[in-house]
Amino acid sequence: MNLKEEALKLHKLNKGKLMVQTKVAVNNEDDLSLAYSPGVAEPCLEIAREPNKIYDYTNKSNFVAVVSNGSAVLGLGNIGAAASLPVMEGKAVLFKEFADVDAFPICLNEPDPDKLISYVKKMAPVFGGINLEDIKSPECFYIEERLKEELDIPVFHDDQHGTAIITLAALINSLIILNKNIEDIKVIVNGAGAAGASIIKLLNSEGVGEIIALDIKGSIYEGRKDLDKNTKEIAKITNKANKKGDLAELIEGADVFIGVSAANLLYKEMVRSMAADPIIFAMANPDPEIWPEDALEAGAKIIGTGRSDYPNQVNNVLAFPGLFRGALDVRAKEINEEMKKAAAYAIANLIDDCDLKTDYVIPKPFDPRVGPYVAAAVAQAAVKTGVARIEIDYKTELEKAQRLMKKANQK
Amino acid sequence: MNLKEEALKLHKLNKGKLMVQTKVAVNNEDDLSLAYSPGVAEPCLEIAREPNKIYDYTNKSNFVAVVSNGSAVLGLGNIGAAASLPVMEGKAVLFKEFADVDAFPICLNEPDPDKLISYVKKMAPVFGGINLEDIKSPECFYIEERLKEELDIPVFHDDQHGTAIITLAALINSLIILNKNIEDIKVIVNGAGAAGASIIKLLNSEGVGEIIALDIKGSIYEGRKDLDKNTKEIAKITNKANKKGDLAELIEGADVFIGVSAANLLYKEMVRSMAADPIIFAMANPDPEIWPEDALEAGAKIIGTGRSDYPNQVNNVLAFPGLFRGALDVRAKEINEEMKKAAAYAIANLIDDCDLKTDYVIPKPFDPRVGPYVAAAVAQAAVKTGVARIEIDYKTELEKAQRLMKKANQK
Repeated sequence: MNLKEEALKLHKLNKGKLMVQTKVAVNNEDDLSLAYSPGVAEPCLEIAREPNKIYDYTNKSNFVAVVSNGSAVLGLGNIGAAASLPVMEGKAVLFKEFADVDAFPICLNEPDPDKLISYVKKMAPVFGGINLEDIKSPECFYIEERLKEELDIPVFHDDQHGTAIITLAALINSLIILNKNIEDIKVIVNGAGAAGASIIKLLNSEGVGEIIALDIKGSIYEGRKDLDKNTKEIAKITNKANKKGDLAELIEGADVFIGVSAANLLYKEMVRSMAADPIIFAMANPDPEIWPEDALEAGAKIIGTGRSDYPNQVNNVLAFPGLFRGALDVRAKEINEEMKKAAAYAIANLIDDCDLKTDYVIPKPFDPRVGPYVAAAVAQAAVKTGVARIEIDYKTELEKAQRLMKKANQK
Repeated sequence: MNLKEEALKLHKLNKGKLMVQTKVAVNNEDDLSLAYSPGVAEPCLEIAREPNKIYDYTNKSNFVAVVSNGSAVLGLGNIGAAASLPVMEGKAVLFKEFADVDAFPICLNEPDPDKLISYVKKMAPVFGGINLEDIKSPECFYIEERLKEELDIPVFHDDQHGTAIITLAALINSLIILNKNIEDIKVIVNGAGAAGASIIKLLNSEGVGEIIALDIKGSIYEGRKDLDKNTKEIAKITNKANKKGDLAELIEGADVFIGVSAANLLYKEMVRSMAADPIIFAMANPDPEIWPEDALEAGAKIIGTGRSDYPNQVNNVLAFPGLFRGALDVRAKEINEEMKKAAAYAIANLIDDCDLKTDYVIPKPFDPRVGPYVAAAVAQAAVKTGVARIEIDYKTELEKAQRLMKKANQK
């Protein structure tokens, strides 16, 4: 049986992947009168009096809405809210399995960004965080920006920032191996959609020497006439020399190629034109911008893709579960750049310098340390940047994660 | 420790009462590629091609939204969406524990009925049913009516119909004991809010001889100047003789008093003025319209209240879990009057005629037969009235419920 058939079978057999479970027993009249009427009136009244107590008396502190309108689902495009439900259930499964976050799919049949924003705001009381998912660009930027401004809980568009965090982690480790400084490198980011925009911003704020971004029409530069709000922002912080040209022209001498674009558009000759020891993160899905074999043949030193069947898989599951875990734990008001960077460094640092290899710059998705270490780093960054409402100690979780890792290594 | 303290402790200890759980394991890369990317694309595509397959590949068939704007929470009034969350989590707990329905709280910070309707419509793709909860009257009538019209999944306002179903069940059994015919009885319904309106409609369609409804200003009759849409509809089907007056005047000669109003407004003298063998369902919460001791002293034969510390508790948990179970099982497009009646008769019939007693006209909430029997009856009624999309056989469930009941009785 092939993957497609198996996937359909799994979904059909279980009628989906998610369910709701209770945390309290209801076995008799006494239970009933505590969990429901009349006892439940008390927590309601407490919350009505003091709104913050909703974190004490309900599951808000651990509820995350996985919000989509189905307008840019995986590589499938605008298939709509209903057809996106399997992805959103799947995302919720990952939240639970990797970080014990109670996520619930909210698929909204609504293309209009302003309306979608208002719906999410209206339902926010239930949730401790909002994960935006598979919403098309450029609407996704506006939706996230406004929700971040108007809500006091973390709002995070994973398609943008998840990939950016893992890419930064992979880059940090790659530069250690190749003994290059981040300030000296030239990076090409091919693709200026949701993921590209966030990668560019994160790398820029980390001090990357030169970034040139390209979209389907070539390099992005200030003054290019067809730029929208998003690409204008990109133009402002990249391509200081206002270089014009296509990928083949601009990749010459670059240290790093980051692809969040489409299959098979990076050719061997282009890799050969890069600086010594090229780093290639070719993350188009399912087929990368260049296949790892070809990139290696053309001289690439480190290659990452979105695929699990090649080394260095850039997989968002390394970031979002632990990121939300940490943000929820300290009741962060938002997820800011420092928290994203903290996540990236936590991921990178999980590989000891002595273990770093060109085909191991990113930890594996099932490394049991990833979730807790990301959570701890993100929580700390939230406290440091003043967006945390409480503090928390992760010592026990981190020790447990270390033990699990040792056990896994012994197998 | 008293009930209030215990309730707060329970909620705080568990940080709420609800969580999300997965139905599939994600232990390795293979699991990941089936439950999430790339495998998850297949069910998405299937649903995009054929929308009804959402029932096969997701948990939609078992997801119910518990929707509230917190405008009429328990007896607490308009405490808002956030403060209503403990109730909605509690409701979801009951859905799960009593009928294995995966319900999720959707608390919408929105007083405007039209806006609330549009939000629920937009999020409907995820859900197999909508349970409206604690929304104030008269908005609740309009919201339910429009959502029923515009959605093809069951929409049910429990505060209206839950109480009505149990009341009808209790009445059916009471009339058997007292050997009265439903066509001959005169019923006073005191209170014309959410529950009152639904009780009146259900009793009317069951052929009750005479119904007189009262609100805070006295009897409701055609032509009364201050009637709204809801009370106008009530006037049309009740009080044929257009009697005017207050409760004391109109209860004279009545066989049944149904109170969904407020504490302590039914006096002993009023009970004494009723027909022989009065039936009193005094369901105001937490304090009834008359205390059972007083009603008995004044000659009442059968007394039900909303309280668990007296016999004949009218508890909605007898109806809504099984009702949704049945409706979901057959993928009913709606919950219609016949399905509600079927639920009422299923509840009533659980007590054998030989077991019927004046203090046992309603089964206990933890009678294990209630959920499955209600579900089976509701599903059958859905099929019969042409609103079911599939059929289902409950034989195994009913036999299991019978065994559980025998076991419980032996203890």
